[in-house]
Amino acid sequence: MSDEVISPELTPLDELKLHWNELHVEDRVARFTALQRDDAEEVFLNLETAYQAELIQNLSPNLRRSWIRMLPLDDTADLIQHLPIEERDYYLSLLDLDTKREVIGLLAYAEDDAGGLMTPHFIRLRPDMNVEVAIRYLRAHSKHHEQTIYYCYVVDPNQHLIGVISFRELLLAKPGQLVGKIMKTDLITVLDTLDQEEVAKIFSEQRFSAIPVVDSENKLKGVVTYDDIAHAIQKEATEDIQKIGGMEALTLPYWQTGFFTMLRKRAGWLTGLFVGEMFTTTAMSHYEQAIERAVVLALFIPLIISSGGNSGSQASTLIVRAMALGEVTLSQWWRVLYREVGSGLALGLILGTVGVLRILLWPNREAVFGSHYELVAITLGASLIGVVLWGATAGAMLPFALRKLKLDPASASAPLVATLVDVTGIVIYFSVAKLFLTGTLL
Amino acid sequence: MSDEVISPELTPLDELKLHWNELHVEDRVARFTALQRDDAEEVFLNLETAYQAELIQNLSPNLRRSWIRMLPLDDTADLIQHLPIEERDYYLSLLDLDTKREVIGLLAYAEDDAGGLMTPHFIRLRPDMNVEVAIRYLRAHSKHHEQTIYYCYVVDPNQHLIGVISFRELLLAKPGQLVGKIMKTDLITVLDTLDQEEVAKIFSEQRFSAIPVVDSENKLKGVVTYDDIAHAIQKEATEDIQKIGGMEALTLPYWQTGFFTMLRKRAGWLTGLFVGEMFTTTAMSHYEQAIERAVVLALFIPLIISSGGNSGSQASTLIVRAMALGEVTLSQWWRVLYREVGSGLALGLILGTVGVLRILLWPNREAVFGSHYELVAITLGASLIGVVLWGATAGAMLPFALRKLKLDPASASAPLVATLVDVTGIVIYFSVAKLFLTGTLL
Repeated sequence: MSDEVISPELTPLDELKLHWNELHVEDRVARFTALQRDDAEEVFLNLETAYQAELIQNLSPNLRRSWIRMLPLDDTADLIQHLPIEERDYYLSLLDLDTKREVIGLLAYAEDDAGGLMTPHFIRLRPDMNVEVAIRYLRAHSKHHEQTIYYCYVVDPNQHLIGVISFRELLLAKPGQLVGKIMKTDLITVLDTLDQEEVAKIFSEQRFSAIPVVDSENKLKGVVTYDDIAHAIQKEATEDIQKIGGMEALTLPYWQTGFFTMLRKRAGWLTGLFVGEMFTTTAMSHYEQAIERAVVLALFIPLIISSGGNSGSQASTLIVRAMALGEVTLSQWWRVLYREVGSGLALGLILGTVGVLRILLWPNREAVFGSHYELVAITLGASLIGVVLWGATAGAMLPFALRKLKLDPASASAPLVATLVDVTGIVIYFSVAKLFLTGTLL
Repeated sequence: MSDEVISPELTPLDELKLHWNELHVEDRVARFTALQRDDAEEVFLNLETAYQAELIQNLSPNLRRSWIRMLPLDDTADLIQHLPIEERDYYLSLLDLDTKREVIGLLAYAEDDAGGLMTPHFIRLRPDMNVEVAIRYLRAHSKHHEQTIYYCYVVDPNQHLIGVISFRELLLAKPGQLVGKIMKTDLITVLDTLDQEEVAKIFSEQRFSAIPVVDSENKLKGVVTYDDIAHAIQKEATEDIQKIGGMEALTLPYWQTGFFTMLRKRAGWLTGLFVGEMFTTTAMSHYEQAIERAVVLALFIPLIISSGGNSGSQASTLIVRAMALGEVTLSQWWRVLYREVGSGLALGLILGTVGVLRILLWPNREAVFGSHYELVAITLGASLIGVVLWGATAGAMLPFALRKLKLDPASASAPLVATLVDVTGIVIYFSVAKLFLTGTLL
């Protein structure tokens, strides 16, 4: 993959960046400290927060100050949040007083709120400045700010946000014009407490490289920039995928997650699902006599329950993702239900037909399925329709139920549906069998 | 959710944007055409490509030209790709000749390559221009370019990319300096054929708002900007999630996907998995006599196979995502194997213990599980260890196998693993049963 990325030549530095996460921690630290300062800076600034935190903890104490001061404010706050609580004060003490105060301000926000994503450094202008003065102000101040901010924010004396103007607009405007006359007042802003998933949605709908963050009084608190949000989008997707896969979301990359942390994040849900799945044993024991009389019924149990589980996983992941992207809203549950009943029926008919043919066309069908194989085929086909329909419906409705309960719709949705459908699938199957086979096999 | 996004007042326009995808297509068109031109522009430019295509097809022919010409080049190309093939020439004919030529150039790239994402409009400078001339050139030309590009690219007479300089750097430099002296030459570029997933990875590692796209001779072809990539990141994540959920990825949002398209995308994998799952019936029929002799064994089949399936889904989604993010590379398969064998064993021991306790501590254990319930408990515990270990290992290795075979590791990975583990889980279970129960129950 990465060989398609052209670099005129692959330097030892590129090599290190490329294979960073394959190295052991001691090697990472050793190779990092061996770098020239400017190469080291390039590596350090582009690392994941987790790796930055790892490095800084492993550097000799006299180097830590200069490295932690390299970072932009919002990244410093993220770094501090990745450190053990008991060490945070020590690292905060390495910052200059102004920075420390601002970082502590950022730490008050959850990492995944707009307030936790934003940088508090941005260019503030007054509406009564003219363009020439504004550009002079900019030239004097913009070196101190993150290079990614291309907008200037216009505030009144009480820090209320009243307008925005891009660097380019300033550059193209006549020198004597007032900022207040040419600024854009039709603003997109986000609340500092808005979840980053929602912030990401707004970014992907709008074409801005930065969005201002305000508090509930419309006072400007900071700016979220596209690079923070690209990272946030990836992180949200990762969390959702891990949850859909039936585990707690990891906070660190795969190799950085310790064995026991990983085990805990996985064992919790796996045990929970296992306990839920125990109801299949209870359900099955109700039908023990039926199985005893017609063992042939047992042959199809894995097929039946897995078909329900698969159609349920499909439907739930589909809806979970559509919800995360805002394509489907809570109030649309009945339209989704209507549609998924249709899909479930059609899918059930397809699988039911394949299942019936599997029995009717099998070479030694009587030897394997007994002399009543046609009735067994009907039982299988009808059960599949019921189970697949139920899987699709339950799978599509579970995310709505979870969201309604203020839970994350992604939480273990696929395996949760599978477990639910396994238990009910058994009941559906044996009920159908009773209907068609009583008097012959049962 | 959306109520947390502050807009001073929620205008009818905001209302429309918010509920756009809940409306029926006729309502969307009717409400769009009723808008003031500037409101309509704001709506149109920020719509998903699929909705832009829908609108333009439903507008009266005399309006189409002005709307399609509103779009930036790369978005026009995307729009054309969303239209039926037989209509494309008609819509291309609505463009001016220059634009048409450039759009056709873009159409040659796959939509999800860097070449398909890029805009061919950007500012080109020569290294021997001085800063003053460059700024004058910029003032004259930048109005014609997408507002999101903040970099100027420096090329030699043969269009080879030799450097980059940001607007801000130009603005802060001394007027007489040569662009060639102050430009940055240490460039990050991507090949025009690079997949957007890889482009997204580079964006989230680097802090640039735009990355230049070059061909194999290092000639500058265009620029990918952060807003295209934020969208691409979301799209890639959606595709992966849908594939992990066991279906083909959708190209359109949920409500825009027709019933039969949706059915086709789901029925394919569902039927495939069903056919694979039929091997469980074959496997079960091998153990028909064992079930006949000890029906109690049948009770645990759903529990056994679902535990294997869940541990497999967990491991596979974890690795699929880690691969997509570049956290885990193909060559690391043995390290992952080593780790997952450890996790699988630990998880198997946990579930095995819970399973054994479930039998040993059940109030009427002898009535339900028979007089040999201790042996049944050992059989269940040992099988769970084996099945969960196998699930975690197979789940973690399948993405490597798929990638090695040049297939997408995300493809139905979770249900594929579940199916694989279901069949083998049955074999493991009955083999363990034979070991422990021959002479007593079997």
